[in-house]
Amino acid sequence: MRLKKFGLNPARIHHIFISHLHGDHVFGLFGLLSTLGMMGRKVPLHLYGPRALSELMDYYSRYFGPLPFELIFASPAENEEFIYENDRISVTAIPLKHRTQAFGYLFREKSKPLNVIKEQIEFFGLGLADVVKAKRGEDFVTDSGERIANSRLTLPPYHKRSYAYISDTAFDPGLSEKVRGVDLLFHEATFAEKDKKLAAQTLHSTAAQAATIARNAGVQKLLIGHFSTRYKDPIRLEEEAREVFSHTIGVNDGDVYSVPLRRQKRE
Amino acid sequence: MRLKKFGLNPARIHHIFISHLHGDHVFGLFGLLSTLGMMGRKVPLHLYGPRALSELMDYYSRYFGPLPFELIFASPAENEEFIYENDRISVTAIPLKHRTQAFGYLFREKSKPLNVIKEQIEFFGLGLADVVKAKRGEDFVTDSGERIANSRLTLPPYHKRSYAYISDTAFDPGLSEKVRGVDLLFHEATFAEKDKKLAAQTLHSTAAQAATIARNAGVQKLLIGHFSTRYKDPIRLEEEAREVFSHTIGVNDGDVYSVPLRRQKRE
Repeated sequence: MRLKKFGLNPARIHHIFISHLHGDHVFGLFGLLSTLGMMGRKVPLHLYGPRALSELMDYYSRYFGPLPFELIFASPAENEEFIYENDRISVTAIPLKHRTQAFGYLFREKSKPLNVIKEQIEFFGLGLADVVKAKRGEDFVTDSGERIANSRLTLPPYHKRSYAYISDTAFDPGLSEKVRGVDLLFHEATFAEKDKKLAAQTLHSTAAQAATIARNAGVQKLLIGHFSTRYKDPIRLEEEAREVFSHTIGVNDGDVYSVPLRRQKRE
Repeated sequence: MRLKKFGLNPARIHHIFISHLHGDHVFGLFGLLSTLGMMGRKVPLHLYGPRALSELMDYYSRYFGPLPFELIFASPAENEEFIYENDRISVTAIPLKHRTQAFGYLFREKSKPLNVIKEQIEFFGLGLADVVKAKRGEDFVTDSGERIANSRLTLPPYHKRSYAYISDTAFDPGLSEKVRGVDLLFHEATFAEKDKKLAAQTLHSTAAQAATIARNAGVQKLLIGHFSTRYKDPIRLEEEAREVFSHTIGVNDGDVYSVPLRRQKRE
């Protein structure tokens, strides 16, 4: 229902990353799986999360299955962080400190080819094969034997964008190293600074703690959320975070943030 | 989230009746239980439904429990329909024909006392004990020995209102007897008449079939819903039902219908 509300087509989802088995992080999965089944999905769905999620899926199947598509489950090992990659991105799992086994996920784009300049293709008369070579960094030799340096034909690729999702977790200074330099970091900020003790007891973070991770990691932008419903006006949490790390935004379910494409520097 | 949207306080819920274990009828329960737990509920919650729901609750507790309140589960026997009563209402379960064990529920108000007429209390000078007697149907004897007939003191009680909830089920003519004369009947109407075969295959009903049950049962009003998402405009289903039973209304989640209080006839 939430996906529909936000205009997202569930059929386009192929990989689902579950952080941990608390209701607010996993109950929506059951309805989504049943909806995908009703829609007649045939292609497999990949599911990542704590090992107990696999058992839970067995119970789901027992009462609500079978599903008309394959459910492929993988669980990160506690010490092995890599979890998934395709030709464009890789995903690593980051163990978190919470009341039950929990993982954050770091999504990184892979190396991108050089961008061949359209005007130069026309000017020098590059064929398709020449463009492919130029993308790989090769020079172009004209029919008259003139060598055109690759640097005249191409722009450096866009940088490899990265996004880290960290929820739920106690304040863990070691996380900064794990998410160093990401473009976009989501970090839970369940509590305000005045409820710091409660955060420690429940293994959650304060807004200022989330901002501390972001500042120490040197990220481009921090998104905070997962605010406790005890705060009528979460704007105060955003303010507390901004005192530590100014590039902070408080977010709600369904908010969308684009990571701008930036040219890498020519090496 | 839905309860909140409709302005309903989940803490006021004490009894939950689950029809069957298909996702669209039970997945919301998990989030509700966790929310009640988060709210610090202490009083027990009564849960009614197919026996397998009890197992499902065990799995819920294993991964998401323990809850700070007691969950009291009862399951209707296939041949024993009575399931719950208090001083004001009784609830009976009605076995349905669906792809998994399913029950409808019939809610009936219990006998109500006579309504003592306020003006007559003052006119004849009835004390509190006299009012209680009059409510039970007794006459009143004045200090001077005059006997005032109960029929002069009271109005007949309001009739005992009744509501039946029937979802999901194949068309089952026997249901009319089970819901005879209820004030309000909700009956699922998943399909239009042109998809009658599909209704039979999936053990669901068409709008006209729901209306047939209502007409044969002589109910006051029929609510139909649970429309398949294949129908962009469910108004057609309402029209099909009204051709069979005119007092039909198509409904959506969160719609509210009051059953008007009517005086019983003096016996």
